[in-house]
Amino acid sequence: MQVATQGKPSELADFNGSSVDPWQLVRRGTNPADFAQEESLFALANGALGVRGGIEEYPSASQGSFLAAVWERSPIDYHERFTGYARTTDTRVPVADATGIRLQLGNAPVRLGEGEWLGFERALDLRSGCYRRELSWRSPTGATLEITAQRIVALDEPGLLAMRYQVRSVDYTGPISLESTINTAHGAARQGDDPRIGAQLHGGLQTIDAQAGDTHSWVRQQTANSRIRLACGQQHRLTDDGLRFQHASSAADGVSQTFTGMLLPGQSVTLEKYVAYAWSLPDDDKPNTDLTGEVERTLSTSVAQGYVALLARQTRTLEQFWRDADLAVSDAEIEQALRFNLFHLYQSSGRDGHSSTAAKGLTGEGYEGHYFWDAEAFMLPALVSTAPRLARSLLTYRYETLDRARLHARELDHPRGALYAWRTISGDECSSYFPGGSAQYHINADIAWAIRLYLDASGDEAFLLTQGAEMLFETARIWLDIGHFNARHDGAFCIHEVTGPDEYSALVDNNYYTNRMAQRHLRDAAAVAAQLAASHPTEYAALAGRIELTSDEAALWQRAADAMYLPVDARLNIFPQDDGFLDKPRLPTAIADAPSDQPLLLRLHPMSIYRHQVCKQADTVLALMLAGDGIDTAAKRRNFDYYEGVTVHDSTLSASTFAVMATEVGLGEKAYQYFLDTLRVDLDDLHGNAAHGIHMAAMAGSWLALVWGFGGFRVRGGEPSLAPQLPQPWSSYRFGLRWRDAHLRVEVDRNGVHYSLTDGDSLTFLHNGVRQQLNAGRPLHLACADASATSYTFPRPLKAVIFDLDGVIADTAVVHHAAWKQLADEIGIGFDDSVGERLKGVDRLASLDIVLERATRQYSLDEKLELAARKNDYYREQVQHFGPENLLPGARAAIASVKKAGLKTALASASKNAPLLLERLGIADLFDYVVDANRIARSKPDPEIFIAAASALGVIPSECLGVEDAAAGIASIHAAGMAAVGIGRADALPEADVVLPDVAAFDIGRFAEI
Amino acid sequence: MQVATQGKPSELADFNGSSVDPWQLVRRGTNPADFAQEESLFALANGALGVRGGIEEYPSASQGSFLAAVWERSPIDYHERFTGYARTTDTRVPVADATGIRLQLGNAPVRLGEGEWLGFERALDLRSGCYRRELSWRSPTGATLEITAQRIVALDEPGLLAMRYQVRSVDYTGPISLESTINTAHGAARQGDDPRIGAQLHGGLQTIDAQAGDTHSWVRQQTANSRIRLACGQQHRLTDDGLRFQHASSAADGVSQTFTGMLLPGQSVTLEKYVAYAWSLPDDDKPNTDLTGEVERTLSTSVAQGYVALLARQTRTLEQFWRDADLAVSDAEIEQALRFNLFHLYQSSGRDGHSSTAAKGLTGEGYEGHYFWDAEAFMLPALVSTAPRLARSLLTYRYETLDRARLHARELDHPRGALYAWRTISGDECSSYFPGGSAQYHINADIAWAIRLYLDASGDEAFLLTQGAEMLFETARIWLDIGHFNARHDGAFCIHEVTGPDEYSALVDNNYYTNRMAQRHLRDAAAVAAQLAASHPTEYAALAGRIELTSDEAALWQRAADAMYLPVDARLNIFPQDDGFLDKPRLPTAIADAPSDQPLLLRLHPMSIYRHQVCKQADTVLALMLAGDGIDTAAKRRNFDYYEGVTVHDSTLSASTFAVMATEVGLGEKAYQYFLDTLRVDLDDLHGNAAHGIHMAAMAGSWLALVWGFGGFRVRGGEPSLAPQLPQPWSSYRFGLRWRDAHLRVEVDRNGVHYSLTDGDSLTFLHNGVRQQLNAGRPLHLACADASATSYTFPRPLKAVIFDLDGVIADTAVVHHAAWKQLADEIGIGFDDSVGERLKGVDRLASLDIVLERATRQYSLDEKLELAARKNDYYREQVQHFGPENLLPGARAAIASVKKAGLKTALASASKNAPLLLERLGIADLFDYVVDANRIARSKPDPEIFIAAASALGVIPSECLGVEDAAAGIASIHAAGMAAVGIGRADALPEADVVLPDVAAFDIGRFAEI
Repeated sequence: MQVATQGKPSELADFNGSSVDPWQLVRRGTNPADFAQEESLFALANGALGVRGGIEEYPSASQGSFLAAVWERSPIDYHERFTGYARTTDTRVPVADATGIRLQLGNAPVRLGEGEWLGFERALDLRSGCYRRELSWRSPTGATLEITAQRIVALDEPGLLAMRYQVRSVDYTGPISLESTINTAHGAARQGDDPRIGAQLHGGLQTIDAQAGDTHSWVRQQTANSRIRLACGQQHRLTDDGLRFQHASSAADGVSQTFTGMLLPGQSVTLEKYVAYAWSLPDDDKPNTDLTGEVERTLSTSVAQGYVALLARQTRTLEQFWRDADLAVSDAEIEQALRFNLFHLYQSSGRDGHSSTAAKGLTGEGYEGHYFWDAEAFMLPALVSTAPRLARSLLTYRYETLDRARLHARELDHPRGALYAWRTISGDECSSYFPGGSAQYHINADIAWAIRLYLDASGDEAFLLTQGAEMLFETARIWLDIGHFNARHDGAFCIHEVTGPDEYSALVDNNYYTNRMAQRHLRDAAAVAAQLAASHPTEYAALAGRIELTSDEAALWQRAADAMYLPVDARLNIFPQDDGFLDKPRLPTAIADAPSDQPLLLRLHPMSIYRHQVCKQADTVLALMLAGDGIDTAAKRRNFDYYEGVTVHDSTLSASTFAVMATEVGLGEKAYQYFLDTLRVDLDDLHGNAAHGIHMAAMAGSWLALVWGFGGFRVRGGEPSLAPQLPQPWSSYRFGLRWRDAHLRVEVDRNGVHYSLTDGDSLTFLHNGVRQQLNAGRPLHLACADASATSYTFPRPLKAVIFDLDGVIADTAVVHHAAWKQLADEIGIGFDDSVGERLKGVDRLASLDIVLERATRQYSLDEKLELAARKNDYYREQVQHFGPENLLPGARAAIASVKKAGLKTALASASKNAPLLLERLGIADLFDYVVDANRIARSKPDPEIFIAAASALGVIPSECLGVEDAAAGIASIHAAGMAAVGIGRADALPEADVVLPDVAAFDIGRFAEI
Repeated sequence: MQVATQGKPSELADFNGSSVDPWQLVRRGTNPADFAQEESLFALANGALGVRGGIEEYPSASQGSFLAAVWERSPIDYHERFTGYARTTDTRVPVADATGIRLQLGNAPVRLGEGEWLGFERALDLRSGCYRRELSWRSPTGATLEITAQRIVALDEPGLLAMRYQVRSVDYTGPISLESTINTAHGAARQGDDPRIGAQLHGGLQTIDAQAGDTHSWVRQQTANSRIRLACGQQHRLTDDGLRFQHASSAADGVSQTFTGMLLPGQSVTLEKYVAYAWSLPDDDKPNTDLTGEVERTLSTSVAQGYVALLARQTRTLEQFWRDADLAVSDAEIEQALRFNLFHLYQSSGRDGHSSTAAKGLTGEGYEGHYFWDAEAFMLPALVSTAPRLARSLLTYRYETLDRARLHARELDHPRGALYAWRTISGDECSSYFPGGSAQYHINADIAWAIRLYLDASGDEAFLLTQGAEMLFETARIWLDIGHFNARHDGAFCIHEVTGPDEYSALVDNNYYTNRMAQRHLRDAAAVAAQLAASHPTEYAALAGRIELTSDEAALWQRAADAMYLPVDARLNIFPQDDGFLDKPRLPTAIADAPSDQPLLLRLHPMSIYRHQVCKQADTVLALMLAGDGIDTAAKRRNFDYYEGVTVHDSTLSASTFAVMATEVGLGEKAYQYFLDTLRVDLDDLHGNAAHGIHMAAMAGSWLALVWGFGGFRVRGGEPSLAPQLPQPWSSYRFGLRWRDAHLRVEVDRNGVHYSLTDGDSLTFLHNGVRQQLNAGRPLHLACADASATSYTFPRPLKAVIFDLDGVIADTAVVHHAAWKQLADEIGIGFDDSVGERLKGVDRLASLDIVLERATRQYSLDEKLELAARKNDYYREQVQHFGPENLLPGARAAIASVKKAGLKTALASASKNAPLLLERLGIADLFDYVVDANRIARSKPDPEIFIAAASALGVIPSECLGVEDAAAGIASIHAAGMAAVGIGRADALPEADVVLPDVAAFDIGRFAEI
């Protein structure tokens, strides 16, 4: 029997071995606390319907089914509401869930929580799209059952869920009943204190009527405000004589049909269950009977085909997808994870032009089921190469909501043009927090970018004429409204008061990402206007007339693009994330390093985040990925290095971007680590919230990390461009790309790259920047990109060395030690080297507290201040007699050699006497910069002093080497993102990258090449 | 009888004459739509209790009574709530209102709306604090009554309202009854769409119990969440035999006592009504019986004294206040308004150390009854000189809430120190919109500034030791947490992500006001720490120990103050409001000039406001007022000029600052206009919302405009400093100032300034910067400040002239005209000079539309583009032959003379051919800057092109002269804030400041001195 080949117990046994099946995800966890996450992982969907992977006979509060088209509109409450605020939000609400099958043995309900789980397994078969799970369970009374359930959500039939449910008795003899339910009791999740979860819902879904019958049962539901209706019906098929219909019932929480039979040891009963949904559009007048009629038609057809045939059809549909994706990696576990991610992206993406891909797909209630910009910037690039039809559908959804975007633009005071909502289902803005919502104007550019990518990859001129051009033009208009030619910057086009994708800065001027993407958008809009005016004058004139577009306006777009303000910071030679970003301090280590598994946004007030140089994800790096044309690799590397140092990756979108760009700038190991981060976000629940749905952008991101990252795929001047590299841990990998009529297979192994066409006659593309012509049946074999041959020499060069003073250059530590000892002796407190060692790099009052730990009485603040002053007097007395002879041996030569090697030098000492000391030691001229200790608010191990030194020298921290003799100093250097050389005993400085016995051993030649 | 002298009808007649009594505000309006505003104007208060000026027998929904101590705590709803958000808000709720007296003639209730108002007058006597009003009314049945009511809210008895109510019959004979009520039915106002009004209240005030008796009646109320209780009771006194008690009643909406009598023509009945309130603190356990007991004690004492005695006591209390304020102006109407404002400030300010001065005092529900920073920056400076005890009470309120400020700092992630709530009653942050709320960190500096002002003026060392120092230190700490020494600005101390008082920019870096005030605050905190350590070592050590303050920390404050980042913009030579401000565009004229009586915040989304250079109030100018020491007058003038050009004065706080600074920089006429604006904000309802309460800061601002403005009062180095000027419209004015033990009288007239002491033995102060010693009985007579003798020469010098091209320098207008005419002829459309004139300064496609107005058919967009291109060809053909001979006569000489006079020149032409034309005309070398028309998005009359020119030249618009030949150009120049010279016919350019027949008549010598 066909079904058995998909899920028979003997096959499951294979997965107990060590080898991983790249086509199956298998989980065996039985801890109920993990079930919500597993329900997300094992959710099935088809773009219209999503069903979480709960256990039929074990109801869970987090189980749910969703329809992309069914959402409620709730008023948004504001304590203070300002002009133009979003008035309502759309929330995708859980609909009637029909996965439940309640079991009863005799008169005793089966309660899984009370029995013993002898064996449990969930498996998702990626080839067939079938979720199957097995349970071997012993009841409290000793009856042992083996339950096997499988289901599919039909990819070819928007409203259909088909299930096959089997119970086998091991040792039980007696009656069994299966109550198959449609459950309407599940409400929407509460938001609580985490704004990423759920909604503040007013209204919701109400059941209008229900009917439970012998063959069919159904419920009809309706949303209170958005007036969307749905019907959900079920029908069953009995494949053997084991079960017979007993009765149907209808209650407040739904409808059910019950089937009963007799079990004997070794025997089983099987129920096939078919569930169909139908729904209306908002305010649609379709009669309710039409909805139930549609449901019944779907059910009849499905029952007639049977589960086995439906599963076979599902497998065939997926075959085409997997053929286009054409994924393979020499590491089966990686391959499995990649396939798993891509499968989820594929099944959760909208197909009907009325829906897109929600942040958590159709797998949970996170983010209210909203669509964001990542649909275009992350999901679409993966779909455009593997399932172009879906990519177009996502864009059509935007076209369908263009009028809402026009209205949204008016709400934000733009007299014309269209601004897409930051988060939405219906097209209306649903963001109640505009600094992190509507202020993200970049969404217009992201959609324009996706349109261009789709057009390049598909050549779909009909789309351009009927939808694409109008969206490009209307969205382009907004830039001229929020930007201006700034006479204070030689007429550069500046864009104000926006928020970039990195939401850890908000309402900034000239966000690099926004400006760069807007430039691309404006240029493209102007080019398309010119191209259409020439190639399709009639259609163009009609469109231009309709939206009142003149050639002057298109020319203005071009001028704004040409004049776009994209400055390079003069000191750091990087692109500032925004006008104010580089001037802000970094997050204090006390906050950044506090032990917490929560993102900053749940730990700090937004202002505290905005006040610092800290990125949730680095949008400047993303700009270099999406619009990196014409920017040289050295610049990309500098930006990568800098922004990596200030990024906390609190967004699941972050890792894939860093993976792609790490590959491009030649940082293979980092790239691989970031790839794993995005690959396993949900599989390993790295962000702790997969229970509310899995992260579509991170899943798409793993494909991006593979194809755009390791494969080096980009579109350059309308042509596909590749530069594959082989990650060191792998021996080979493969991926496929759809490009117009062709399908390109890219296979990479240690011998290089094999390009072949699996579809189409020929394809022109760039390989490592060189144009190649590939013809059907004539594969090309080319060398991989040589990372060391890029225009930038790796490893990165050292630019500066920053020295500590005490104990590194001069032994003032000895003088401090002597002064503290003298004081301790005077007041009769024991003092030895173990105490002395702890004082290094610690400020005066904190040192005193350490010294006084051994005191036998309390000291008042007054007394403490007096003691500290006395110690300082002893110290200053000694230091006054310092001269060049007090330099530690080799110090002058070490510093001079750094200068001679062409590097910059700085002194980072907490001592306020440092400048004077340098003069006395005769080495003031050797330093390019001496940090003024008076202007450092936080002492080591906070990195402030080293970052200030780098900042003043105009170098980025990763180009610096810090030299320190104290553990706190080494920690400070590392927190600043620099390499650390320790001076002293290796066992005392375990964190240092290198430890030298003294400064005389410092050889700059050794480090300048690291 | 004493009462009669305060309110007898014969006195009222005086105010019908033309002369204004400076001690009485009289209104006679009978339009019910204006009553809500009048209730605010005629509200009485005593810091604890506020009673709006409604009409006893004519109930109004907007009537209300308030207790400063009675507020409700409501949860704040957020759709997305982030870490550290304010959880609740305090709302001062209307309490039981006891002003009502319902009349009945026979069995017919008196309904004022249904009869005829024969005469009506309200009068507020500022000497006695008595609100008296008269109504002569004829009922629908023809009975005529004269009603006289008066009341006081006792300044010496926190919970007491006393009323005297008299009804006189003109022609009515029959029974009358007076039902005296305590009304509990009035709920809190709804916020609606204007965030300045009311609250989103959860909970509110509930009546616990009530009792109506023969002599006393009372109600007890309690707030649902904050658990504050109050009792309100009333008792009556019958001064003659006209009335007798009839019955008492209790109902859902309150309690009442009814009195009846008989009226005959010419006879009257009189009722004295006493109302007392008592209240508990939040969560106070005081038994309810204590509250009613307190009420009854107050009532007994008051009834025993009687209304006349209470009124006399009230008058005596006010006498002291008016003696200290010592106000007089030669213009009685002005004097009346000043007194009226100061009276309101005085009566609404808290006296008990548990309350401050709310934004709308105790006069209405606006802003939820919250206290803001303006209590310290506007109200306190007026009180400190006229009622120092109240100033101290305001600061004690802050001290009482210091622990709440500490908690608020923790909520915003500051590990120590205190941050005062932006808006509050209890001390807890009540702002739900943090960009305009908690981000206004300047409140800490404002409070510190007020502490310093109070200490300087009072010498109150006890306050410093017990309250002031702790507040100064704890609030100073926050600056080190939100600022840092920025290595990218040579270690300057930068403060990030704050909002200044100008809320039309938000979340900015280095707001000048904040940095400047923080500098002052830090310096003061460091100085006080040093001073106390020396003068009061024991107290200081105790405080330092308690708050863990070390001398290192105080030294850090000093260093941060010394290093404070306060840049001067290199081009404009002004202080930038913040790092990004000057880079933003100005508000497009289409928005700025749109006809609306609403502030921008009700017309535009916050982002649209933030995106532009536009100020609600100019906080940089305010910084120059509050902390202008050491900044020269020329710099103040430049900043004044610049910021005046971008300020819309949507805040009622704005005008007084501009009034004070206009005086200081020598702009007398402007100063006077701004003075009138702040003086009459509520009297004339200039902002349209006096109905919700009157504007305390604007009222205090009128005193500031007088004393700090015309009087030039400041505190310099701890000493009072004056520099009086006499406003041109006045012949004299006078004001008094309390300074430590002295009271200084300042009298200014055309002969100069008379200084005398009305209290104290001697006083040292600065007059026009010169130290003076004033002794009792030995007045000084000194000269007024001579505005023209300041370091800055007025009128302001001209720095640049910006020329239009077409029609000014060269007659391309003629060529354009000819080209259009040629086109019009070709397509058979009439074209004459009247059409031609309208094309000047208008861009090509818009010109075409004007030309085509006379067409007999519609032209398609394609056709239009072709026509415009054809016209341009004709034009370019002509212009190609241009040479120096095409310069208009005198143009070269005119421009050259500007250069020779040392001024800068720019060309602001919309023509994209301008640079080429200048070369051909041979005058390219005469221009310092030519605006690139390609980089101008909005055409004239928008000012963009002229502002771009000024910006590029590095001059502020008010220093520029624009020269134009078209009306749109003149409008553009004016919108840019420049003076405009028109070239052409005067009747065609009516808006120009000067019109010259041609450019040859342009004489720079004529303008350089204007």
